[in-house]
Amino acid sequence: GDFARIDHHRRLRTGFPEVIWGPGKTPDQIAQIMIAMRDRGSVVMATRIEPEVYAKLQEKVPDLYYYAMARICAITPPNFPSGGDPGGVGGVISILSAGTADLPVAEEAAVTAELSGFRVHRLWDVGVAGIHRLLNNRHVVESADVLIVVAGMEGALPSVVAGLADCPVIAVPTSIGYGASFGGLAPLLTMLNSCAAGVGVVNIDNGFGAAVLAGQILRAAHKLHLSQSSD
Amino acid sequence: GDFARIDHHRRLRTGFPEVIWGPGKTPDQIAQIMIAMRDRGSVVMATRIEPEVYAKLQEKVPDLYYYAMARICAITPPNFPSGGDPGGVGGVISILSAGTADLPVAEEAAVTAELSGFRVHRLWDVGVAGIHRLLNNRHVVESADVLIVVAGMEGALPSVVAGLADCPVIAVPTSIGYGASFGGLAPLLTMLNSCAAGVGVVNIDNGFGAAVLAGQILRAAHKLHLSQSSD
Amino acid sequence: GDFARIDHHRRLRTGFPEVIWGPGKTPDQIAQIMIAMRDRGSVVMATRIEPEVYAKLQEKVPDLYYYAMARICAITPPNFPSGGDPGGVGGVISILSAGTADLPVAEEAAVTAELSGFRVHRLWDVGVAGIHRLLNNRHVVESADVLIVVAGMEGALPSVVAGLADCPVIAVPTSIGYGASFGGLAPLLTMLNSCAAGVGVVNIDNGFGAAVLAGQILRAAHKLHLSQSSD
Amino acid sequence: GDFARIDHHRRLRTGFPEVIWGPGKTPDQIAQIMIAMRDRGSVVMATRIEPEVYAKLQEKVPDLYYYAMARICAITPPNFPSGGDPGGVGGVISILSAGTADLPVAEEAAVTAELSGFRVHRLWDVGVAGIHRLLNNRHVVESADVLIVVAGMEGALPSVVAGLADCPVIAVPTSIGYGASFGGLAPLLTMLNSCAAGVGVVNIDNGFGAAVLAGQILRAAHKLHLSQSSD
Amino acid sequence: GDFARIDHHRRLRTGFPEVIWGPGKTPDQIAQIMIAMRDRGSVVMATRIEPEVYAKLQEKVPDLYYYAMARICAITPPNFPSGGDPGGVGGVISILSAGTADLPVAEEAAVTAELSGFRVHRLWDVGVAGIHRLLNNRHVVESADVLIVVAGMEGALPSVVAGLADCPVIAVPTSIGYGASFGGLAPLLTMLNSCAAGVGVVNIDNGFGAAVLAGQILRAAHKLHLSQSSD
Amino acid sequence: GDFARIDHHRRLRTGFPEVIWGPGKTPDQIAQIMIAMRDRGSVVMATRIEPEVYAKLQEKVPDLYYYAMARICAITPPNFPSGGDPGGVGGVISILSAGTADLPVAEEAAVTAELSGFRVHRLWDVGVAGIHRLLNNRHVVESADVLIVVAGMEGALPSVVAGLADCPVIAVPTSIGYGASFGGLAPLLTMLNSCAAGVGVVNIDNGFGAAVLAGQILRAAHKLHLSQSSD
Amino acid sequence: GDFARIDHHRRLRTGFPEVIWGPGKTPDQIAQIMIAMRDRGSVVMATRIEPEVYAKLQEKVPDLYYYAMARICAITPPNFPSGGDPGGVGGVISILSAGTADLPVAEEAAVTAELSGFRVHRLWDVGVAGIHRLLNNRHVVESADVLIVVAGMEGALPSVVAGLADCPVIAVPTSIGYGASFGGLAPLLTMLNSCAAGVGVVNIDNGFGAAVLAGQILRAAHKLHLSQSSD
Amino acid sequence: GDFARIDHHRRLRTGFPEVIWGPGKTPDQIAQIMIAMRDRGSVVMATRIEPEVYAKLQEKVPDLYYYAMARICAITPPNFPSGGDPGGVGGVISILSAGTADLPVAEEAAVTAELSGFRVHRLWDVGVAGIHRLLNNRHVVESADVLIVVAGMEGALPSVVAGLADCPVIAVPTSIGYGASFGGLAPLLTMLNSCAAGVGVVNIDNGFGAAVLAGQILRAAHKLHLSQSSD
Ligand SMILES: Nc1ncnc2c1ncn2[C@@H]1O[C@H](COP(=O)(O)O)[C@@H](O)[C@H]1O
Ligand SMILES: Nc1ncnc2c1ncn2[C@@H]1O[C@H](COP(=O)(O)O)[C@@H](O)[C@H]1O
Ligand SMILES: Nc1ncnc2c1ncn2[C@@H]1O[C@H](COP(=O)(O)O)[C@@H](O)[C@H]1O
Ligand SMILES: Nc1ncnc2c1ncn2[C@@H]1O[C@H](COP(=O)(O)O)[C@@H](O)[C@H]1O
Ligand SMILES: [Mg+2]
Ligand SMILES: [Mg+2]
Ligand SMILES: [Mg+2]
Ligand SMILES: [Mg+2]
Ligand SMILES: [Mg+2]
Ligand SMILES: [Mg+2]
Ligand SMILES: [Mg+2]
Ligand SMILES: [Mg+2]
Repeated sequence: GDFARIDHHRRLRTGFPEVIWGPGKTPDQIAQIMIAMRDRGSVVMATRIEPEVYAKLQEKVPDLYYYAMARICAITPPNFPSGGDPGGVGGVISILSAGTADLPVAEEAAVTAELSGFRVHRLWDVGVAGIHRLLNNRHVVESADVLIVVAGMEGALPSVVAGLADCPVIAVPTSIGYGASFGGLAPLLTMLNSCAAGVGVVNIDNGFGAAVLAGQILRAAHKLHLSQSSD
Repeated sequence: GDFARIDHHRRLRTGFPEVIWGPGKTPDQIAQIMIAMRDRGSVVMATRIEPEVYAKLQEKVPDLYYYAMARICAITPPNFPSGGDPGGVGGVISILSAGTADLPVAEEAAVTAELSGFRVHRLWDVGVAGIHRLLNNRHVVESADVLIVVAGMEGALPSVVAGLADCPVIAVPTSIGYGASFGGLAPLLTMLNSCAAGVGVVNIDNGFGAAVLAGQILRAAHKLHLSQSSD
Repeated sequence: GDFARIDHHRRLRTGFPEVIWGPGKTPDQIAQIMIAMRDRGSVVMATRIEPEVYAKLQEKVPDLYYYAMARICAITPPNFPSGGDPGGVGGVISILSAGTADLPVAEEAAVTAELSGFRVHRLWDVGVAGIHRLLNNRHVVESADVLIVVAGMEGALPSVVAGLADCPVIAVPTSIGYGASFGGLAPLLTMLNSCAAGVGVVNIDNGFGAAVLAGQILRAAHKLHLSQSSD
Repeated sequence: GDFARIDHHRRLRTGFPEVIWGPGKTPDQIAQIMIAMRDRGSVVMATRIEPEVYAKLQEKVPDLYYYAMARICAITPPNFPSGGDPGGVGGVISILSAGTADLPVAEEAAVTAELSGFRVHRLWDVGVAGIHRLLNNRHVVESADVLIVVAGMEGALPSVVAGLADCPVIAVPTSIGYGASFGGLAPLLTMLNSCAAGVGVVNIDNGFGAAVLAGQILRAAHKLHLSQSSD
Repeated sequence: GDFARIDHHRRLRTGFPEVIWGPGKTPDQIAQIMIAMRDRGSVVMATRIEPEVYAKLQEKVPDLYYYAMARICAITPPNFPSGGDPGGVGGVISILSAGTADLPVAEEAAVTAELSGFRVHRLWDVGVAGIHRLLNNRHVVESADVLIVVAGMEGALPSVVAGLADCPVIAVPTSIGYGASFGGLAPLLTMLNSCAAGVGVVNIDNGFGAAVLAGQILRAAHKLHLSQSSD
Repeated sequence: GDFARIDHHRRLRTGFPEVIWGPGKTPDQIAQIMIAMRDRGSVVMATRIEPEVYAKLQEKVPDLYYYAMARICAITPPNFPSGGDPGGVGGVISILSAGTADLPVAEEAAVTAELSGFRVHRLWDVGVAGIHRLLNNRHVVESADVLIVVAGMEGALPSVVAGLADCPVIAVPTSIGYGASFGGLAPLLTMLNSCAAGVGVVNIDNGFGAAVLAGQILRAAHKLHLSQSSD
Repeated sequence: GDFARIDHHRRLRTGFPEVIWGPGKTPDQIAQIMIAMRDRGSVVMATRIEPEVYAKLQEKVPDLYYYAMARICAITPPNFPSGGDPGGVGGVISILSAGTADLPVAEEAAVTAELSGFRVHRLWDVGVAGIHRLLNNRHVVESADVLIVVAGMEGALPSVVAGLADCPVIAVPTSIGYGASFGGLAPLLTMLNSCAAGVGVVNIDNGFGAAVLAGQILRAAHKLHLSQSSD
Repeated sequence: GDFARIDHHRRLRTGFPEVIWGPGKTPDQIAQIMIAMRDRGSVVMATRIEPEVYAKLQEKVPDLYYYAMARICAITPPNFPSGGDPGGVGGVISILSAGTADLPVAEEAAVTAELSGFRVHRLWDVGVAGIHRLLNNRHVVESADVLIVVAGMEGALPSVVAGLADCPVIAVPTSIGYGASFGGLAPLLTMLNSCAAGVGVVNIDNGFGAAVLAGQILRAAHKLHLSQSSD
């Protein structure tokens, strides 16, 4: 339909394909966009899909897979290097979450990264209230290529991690919390004010955006590697 | 003057004397209140006194001492147990600060506590960006009777401390920071949303209030001790 | 599951066991964490459990008790000193609420304290609109060991109480109110700006955190008593 | 000048003359408006006049009087019933302030009321941190015709007063405070959420508006009295 | 039950009986409080009662009447001067609303006033977008004893009314609007910043509080009339 | 310098030349940009220039004129149709202000419009507190081609004007006010929530932007006129 | 009913008829207003009508048409120039949307404009993440008479468009987004701070108001054309 | 002094040395920390140093250099690879600014990066109001290794850039703007809500943090290159 102007060249331009953001679209609109993208051979992926919406989509796009915890729907093209390496880009995206309730956001990041062809290392429930849980996994932090740190409530984990890590840290505040969390405002402000430098922040609950940024970092590394190797 | 109705019985009622809050009062008003209080034999103490105001006060109240870093003025009555023990109350108030810029607030807490007769242990500049600075002083945290933790920027220190401490933790957000700190809102929200329980929060920059609360905790302990000893 | 990294040593470290926070977790996840904790002999307790969630939990954890008003689920181990004294710690936690609608939060505090082994004194519906209700119970305030004051709407009760009390005051703002309450922001700001010193504030509706802080205060008293008695 | 369109009939229409609000106007503009009003025989009054501005005004309008604490300038016409009764309107406006630092706002209310011809009763520094100060003056509250209650910090005083008073209560939040006061937002929200009904709130620091509203209330009473007496 | 401490003397103290605020209470709690109040012979009245709650209350308190538009439930005692004059207090409360959607709040004010024994004059849908609707009813404004002005969206009506009225104006912002109304924040700020003086503001959607304040104003007038008549 | 990339073609593209926004630039940078623009024959104009900055600019750009009330500096090229008609565009921009203190913003709009070649009609101090001032000038509103309405405090004027006007209305909130004005947030929200449709809002204090929008409207009219005349 | 005071003359006064805003009105009230307006021969139109409400309205007003995407209900009088030209007013309203999810708001603008008799050009899904989508349609922007630009998320589209357009730009922020969008606050602030001048902003999701403003602009053009043609 | 606990190992741990943040520290404290760091052979660097503070520092630390536009002070150790390559790390950090007034922040980023040994490419004043300025420099964006995009006002530039770039984008909101910019809140929210993915946001005006993050990205690339080359 003319209600959507799909950005088919985004992958060429930016390295990542356009991804459908589910909220505010009717299941019908989502299905039409998916079909148009599949017919062009793109990776087809939609975020923020509730189970009820998935049920309706499946009727129109039967080959659709649903990652329930991550609330992501996807069709992967046949020859897609799943969980593999997009064009030989190396490195691993390490993802930490502070609490169990942050998992939907952490999994949105993890599944987005995997569907984009990156390898992922998951480390869940290492929030600062029991700092030994993080310190016991210090090697994960110290040896990471790039880190995504997901936290709700007061969102203190990225500051502590960035003080230990020797790599870029992407901080994702979540809306997990209540009262003076104000829908995730509290951890968002925490992360923006981090006294440890080298932290890039994305929107509240934006696991998707964190994964794309982490992927861009590994791709940048790969491009520099290619150019340096050829020097 | 009739512009002030001094609460001379506050010490009897709540254990702590009334303290003059400087802002919004003319030096003249402050001096008059100080003289009235001194004449009743109270401890005389005023907070948030800038050096210029102190200079004017000193002319009218010559026996006034100025704690410059803490911005506190005080006259201590002759027989006051300075830095000692108010009526035999035991215990120490341990005060941690995250950064050097938080010192005026941390010192407001420390001097208030000392002028109220409590012993104080200071530990400055142990913020989470270099968590080893805190972990190297873990014994201070683990053996404390009551802790005051002062932090600006993202204010993550009290959460980490409360996860390690076996005593009440009082968190003081400071207005140190910029941009999305919004005058201390960021660390305030951080501390209110702490995923570690057992943290009581006071107003932004309120070192004074934190010291009074810490003192109340030690006094409560002392009263319970007396009643239990007499059982 | 590896989605949760239970902090089994928290009791040893901080005096209080880890407690499960219900929101954002599936009933299945909650049940798995409960079973893992029970198998280690811990107190098992979860907050913010709605009746529907309790119904599902009960199927998997049959020996679970539900405190409906407090929205708390718990299994107490056989030899637990219920409503008693944790290891001989003395003192009583006195809890005041301003209005009837604040009861779920006030009961969250009361039940948490009782399940942690403390004695509790409840005084409900003594808000400032009819100050005689508080003044008639002045002895409760004046003889308290530690006070928790729960209030919504404008949240003025803790200021008045702290002006009368000779012990630490923990203030809990609630989301009870409408319009310019902004979900509890109004009483939160009120309590943070209290002109009576010695007030520690916790998050909006955080009865749980208030109880842990009150418990820490009584435990601190007990430890000081032990050390002073042995002097 | 044509920069101002003076509302000469406002007194006829609403009972109160137009009053000049100082901020944002040049001293020159203020003086021109004052002269135009005086020439029409109006009461001339300007609020929020800093001492430096008064100094400049005095050069152009020599018969100007300055109420320094209230930051008000005025010329009263010769036959004006100062501190008296505007056209026989009875009653007294009772004004309470919570702290000493609230005096500029409380005096703005008092002087405005007096310049408008009303009798005023002042009661300063009776904030809730020492509730006995208010209770000792309970008769002032109980016998008032109309009450203005001025408070900064947490602004709890109007709620307590409205629970005791049998007359309309006008609440004035002040910007006195710091940190989470957010320039007077805290007491403003407190007063709007008062659990005691019958409280009308005006803008932060708006002593002037409170006095006009109180005056309107006494005038309404007078008009009803006249109409009832003539029945 | 001991969950509520009914303020039976509030009428004696403040002229208005305690009124039950529905939200946050179970139907059971509301019914118990109603029965206790009825047994003491008080007016029984509850606000913010949704139709479903009324249905449940009616089973337990059969003589309950429901004012659907105002969302108020009440039992009026047999000899109550309904719509009449409480103890001979004269005057009329004139209530204006800006739009049709503001009616629930405007009716909450009107019914509260009538149940408290005052006469009410209603004027609906005279918002400023068609100022002639107000100007055509100018006599209502000019001859009022006391005015309640209810408005949502931008809430400009009270400013215009206060510029025309020669009596106290009570402004009630409503949550009617969307987007940058932020739940009624926009009209609340409008009313607090009114450039016309003599406006007292109550909480967003607080028709009840406006009616109590208006009633207090008429009662104050009556008391002054009695004292002046006896002079 | 390479610190600025002047948009010399903006007039061709959008009908209006680039204008220098003063704040955050050093006088030196402003002067360099001015000289570069003058050398290209552009209209040279800078907004938000304080008197001290003008004094420094004048030394480097002697032919600079200063509109003190509007805080605008300009050099008009010799053949510029000052106060005239840009390329024969007809119509007048009518500008209303609510109060005297809003004049700097209203004059920023007026001078910007005049320097851009439009005719301007000024009507100052017609705020809603004395609605007759507006109604007496109703013909100005009813016969306008396009209206700019400037108001601070509660910002109600644009709503009333838009209900009377038969042309586009541009609303400019100002930062004039105090307390709950929050730097102009109050009138901004008022204007965005206007119950009268057909109102376009610009940033707080943005008289410049309002003038450009009004000019665009008259230019659009002119272009449509040309195309319709040639039909 | 007397609950509504229909502004039948608004069309005469402002060029646009009164339009019913659905939220907060019962279906019954909406139907009664519609019938009263139809009987006066007005265009009848209601916005923000959910499908369930439409179903109820249809029973009482059978000749009602529902524009589902725009959530608008209307009865057009028989001789209405649908999609045509109101009294010969020329020009086209060009409407751009940034994303597919913004369509309900963009269609509210489009249908309002068409029902008011204007011609509309739609261009959907040209957000800045793929700027080529806009640049490929540059002619639409450059040749427009007046532009409405609808965008959620960060709302950057109007700034880019206004830098390219030679006509007035009306910016409509939408509530599409999540987290730090805060219900549309983010794009609202973006649009108000646009560095490109000549942008008028309406309320979040206010497609209706944008259409009325765009219509006023074309009508102003028409009136100027008529007056210039007759010169 | 014991007021500071310098994190001498931060470079070893995270790749970047500790850097002194000036605000809130006395010149004396800053100088002491600088001397202690210099004596350990670290790079010595302080940000947010106003000219007056620099003047005082220079007296105590004579070999200090001041980057006036960037407000940075530094002593570089003799053998430091200035503007060179830290340990052979390749790549360039490309920095874009939207306007001239954003330069202090953009230079803070540039100088931090250069002092840390990275190569920098500057592109100033390419804001979206004249999109051709960016499009004319499209090659800079398309060939970048990592991008820092600095923008105030509405902060739309990073979204447009991220839609064109094939590398990580770091967005820095600035406090440049006025009114509804709310001290940089507007561009901060814009950047967090970017519809283009792959954008990491830092605090308002935090050029320093952006440079550290960009440096971490290039270092990560280098480490991956080393490990891949050795495979
Ligand atoms: N979970 C997500 N959070 C933020 N942006 C997303 C998310 N999922 C998809 N997007 C982006 O949203 C844009 C789609 O917007 P739309 O045109 O409305 O479908 C795409 O550019 C995606 O890159
Ligand atoms: N730094 C401070 N912060 C908060 N409250 C304070 C501070 N210093 C003194 N106070 C309290 O402020 C009150 C004094 O208010 P006032 O009557 O205005 O002098 C006293 O009750 C003190 O307990
Ligand atoms: N009602 C509550 N409010 C705040 N924190 C809580 C509450 N209940 C439990 N907690 C804390 O939340 C943490 C559990 O987080 P999680 O790992 O997500 O289960 C524990 O550390 C508890 O101390
Ligand atoms: N007072 C003003 N308010 C808003 N924008 C302005 C103002 N004066 C100039 N501008 C715009 O600000 C932009 C200049 O930004 P800069 O490149 O920083 O000089 C130009 O596009 C002007 O159109
Ligand atoms: Mg956990
Ligand atoms: Mg440090
Ligand atoms: Mg009650
Ligand atoms: Mg006092
Ligand atoms: Mg209407
Ligand atoms: Mg005026
Ligand atoms: Mg799209
Ligand atoms: Mg520029």
